Amino acid sequence: MEGHYVMDKKIIGVDLGGTTIKFAILTKDGEVQQKWSIETNTLDEGANIVPDIVGSIKHHLKLYEMEPKQFIGIGMGSPGTVDRKNGTVTGAYNLNWKTVQNVKQVIENETGIRFTIDNDANVAALGERWKGAGENDPDVAFITLGTGVGGGIVSNGALVHGTGAAGEVGHMNVEPNGYLCTCGNRGCLETYASATGVVRVARDMAEEFAGDSQLKKQLDDGQEITAKIVFDLAKKNDILAKMVIDRVCHYLGVACANISNLLNPSFVVIGGGVSAAGDFLLNNVANHFEKYAFPSVRKTTHLRLAQLGNEAGVVGAASLALSLE
Amino acid sequence: MEGHYVMDKKIIGVDLGGTTIKFAILTKDGEVQQKWSIETNTLDEGANIVPDIVGSIKHHLKLYEMEPKQFIGIGMGSPGTVDRKNGTVTGAYNLNWKTVQNVKQVIENETGIRFTIDNDANVAALGERWKGAGENDPDVAFITLGTGVGGGIVSNGALVHGTGAAGEVGHMNVEPNGYLCTCGNRGCLETYASATGVVRVARDMAEEFAGDSQLKKQLDDGQEITAKIVFDLAKKNDILAKMVIDRVCHYLGVACANISNLLNPSFVVIGGGVSAAGDFLLNNVANHFEKYAFPSVRKTTHLRLAQLGNEAGVVGAASLALSLE
Repeated sequence: MEGHYVMDKKIIGVDLGGTTIKFAILTKDGEVQQKWSIETNTLDEGANIVPDIVGSIKHHLKLYEMEPKQFIGIGMGSPGTVDRKNGTVTGAYNLNWKTVQNVKQVIENETGIRFTIDNDANVAALGERWKGAGENDPDVAFITLGTGVGGGIVSNGALVHGTGAAGEVGHMNVEPNGYLCTCGNRGCLETYASATGVVRVARDMAEEFAGDSQLKKQLDDGQEITAKIVFDLAKKNDILAKMVIDRVCHYLGVACANISNLLNPSFVVIGGGVSAAGDFLLNNVANHFEKYAFPSVRKTTHLRLAQLGNEAGVVGAASLALSLE
Repeated sequence: MEGHYVMDKKIIGVDLGGTTIKFAILTKDGEVQQKWSIETNTLDEGANIVPDIVGSIKHHLKLYEMEPKQFIGIGMGSPGTVDRKNGTVTGAYNLNWKTVQNVKQVIENETGIRFTIDNDANVAALGERWKGAGENDPDVAFITLGTGVGGGIVSNGALVHGTGAAGEVGHMNVEPNGYLCTCGNRGCLETYASATGVVRVARDMAEEFAGDSQLKKQLDDGQEITAKIVFDLAKKNDILAKMVIDRVCHYLGVACANISNLLNPSFVVIGGGVSAAGDFLLNNVANHFEKYAFPSVRKTTHLRLAQLGNEAGVVGAASLALSLE
């Protein structure tokens, strides 16, 4: 082999979001070697998005003096409805993509690098599973608590897609006659455990609460309340805030238990903005989880906080490209 | 190839139950060529069970003039806790197996045929998926409603085991402060939708029911009630019986919706003794399922009755052996 030096091929991850597009170049082992991001230009029905992605990748390859042939492929996570086979996206309203976008075709033609795509919650699940709290275990469930509640399921080492819509953790029913959800159903987890759900629970419980509570006062004063404010007040022992968080965590605990009774993953990883509440959230959810998990499941499935934060998407997206090798 | 004739190798399925042990010889395509069964001898802590299985297989191979080398392998479904890797079973109380049983080792040594094993609900799921209502789709969930409620999940064409205890559909929570379950938790699906669960719901609802009902009369008279009786009375428009079945089907609908929102399988197949209630059960469950399934899941996941009956176990068990090829 003297005089020969074959560099391992790299992978590129793209995490397409409504405000920024994140990029990273990784080794096959998942080591992030370069990362950067650009703003998402949603003008003209998002017509600039794919060209911007192409331009940014080309620009950075030039910058790093790299060639297309040095890459196994590009993996991307996208909002909206992703057609994985055809590499297209439709109905990504935060991008203003209303019609079918031929993402794969354009990116492959323009970069000369092979391309693969999945939805954003799934690639975040892959990222946390590969390099985060999931310890690269073959069986990991991921729940993301943000504006909505999303999820991704890895079983036997592979993402579960079902007929295409698997992972709708936020729309698991946790209260038969519960809050009306944007999906049209009632009692979806999302209506209680998303950032807006927490506030909704707080407003509802405040109405019937008569004791001494800062949260109650702030709501009665018409101050703006966020999930973070409710969690912070609960940490400071505000009685109403604690009741609100306990109710939210009850629903999360039921959902985590039902996922686990069904799939018995090694880890249920909780991420997204609301998970910034940290161990306070995790321990509370775990208390409820233990009440509803089957005994052998309680011992073998562990709840964890996500570890990669914003990087989960771009890392998981890159990992999609490993399938192109 | 003149003069040469290579017969395709066969597979053997064994479905080990508390009262009978079913056997079948199948082609690789799943065609049942021979089947038979023997009684399960649970005396002496079930010490005769494995020798009986070995004896019955040997006897039938002789009868059909077949040799061990004509088989890819033997697959078996067993109650209790199955160690798939080591091929052992523990805690199968309906077999009186209290200690670890080296099932695989004995059967392989005695028959000269390779052996593999999984739990009974999982092999029934495999059977229905392969040759029954699952149409050999890669994504199928199976729920069996019997004395208890069990299940098996096939995703991406493979059984989901998680860390080993996946498929506990009967212990998904459907009512936070519900009936106490044998597992120690409250509100498990099994406490409402198993054969005994249906009767429990009937007794409970009868207490608060004041109208005219044959079911109410039979319960008040101290007559023995079964799930079948409740279903039959509901089909005859008995008001109380209809209310009972509607409540049971509500819980089943919630569970099916939560499984489907998470995994979006092509089919959720409902089997087991209680499913003998047929379309009356299925349509009622489907009505509730539609209320709780995410819109795109409602369109793509279909509820179905199991089609193989008692044969699901032995067919699915045999299919396990295909992995030994």
